[in-house]
Amino acid sequence: MDLLVTYDVDTTTPDGNRRLRKVAKICEGHGIRVQKSVFEIVCTEPQRVLLEHKISQVIDETLDSIRIYQMPQHTLDNVHHLGAGVQPVHRADHII
Amino acid sequence: MDLLVTYDVDTTTPDGNRRLRKVAKICEGHGIRVQKSVFEIVCTEPQRVLLEHKISQVIDETLDSIRIYQMPQHTLDNVHHLGAGVQPVHRADHII
Repeated sequence: MDLLVTYDVDTTTPDGNRRLRKVAKICEGHGIRVQKSVFEIVCTEPQRVLLEHKISQVIDETLDSIRIYQMPQHTLDNVHHLGAGVQPVHRADHII
Repeated sequence: MDLLVTYDVDTTTPDGNRRLRKVAKICEGHGIRVQKSVFEIVCTEPQRVLLEHKISQVIDETLDSIRIYQMPQHTLDNVHHLGAGVQPVHRADHII
């Protein structure tokens, strides 16, 4: 499964900055950061469930917004990118 | 086609803030903002091409990062959302 995680964490308070770092750290353990608050993740269904559980434990449900997009396999291999930034390789066999 | 547009525009300069507003305005004309720099868009292939062209005309290719995810129809109807923020309805028949 290809997963995209995007988030807006409210950083108007010091606690918000802590939550932001925690969310980023959790996502870094599962996939590749492609923009400040956007992670691309190739994972299994149990890994997705675990990821969502971990994130739900660290956010403030009233302030922070996390969106998790479940996409068919290989969607992340065909992303259109304009401008600067990373072009991650998610599957080793796709290295040309 | 369901499309997701995510972007990081470098706002360290006044011009960057102008570019950010332009990118947001273009995306608002095509879809729904769900997070600060994340738009969900239901569109046709020609509309996607037009959208990408418009965005490419306003960004700084060396500083800004735009990612456009093409997903199967109805992917945007099944987004997992944690915390605060909008739950957009993309297709009228999905109103329960």
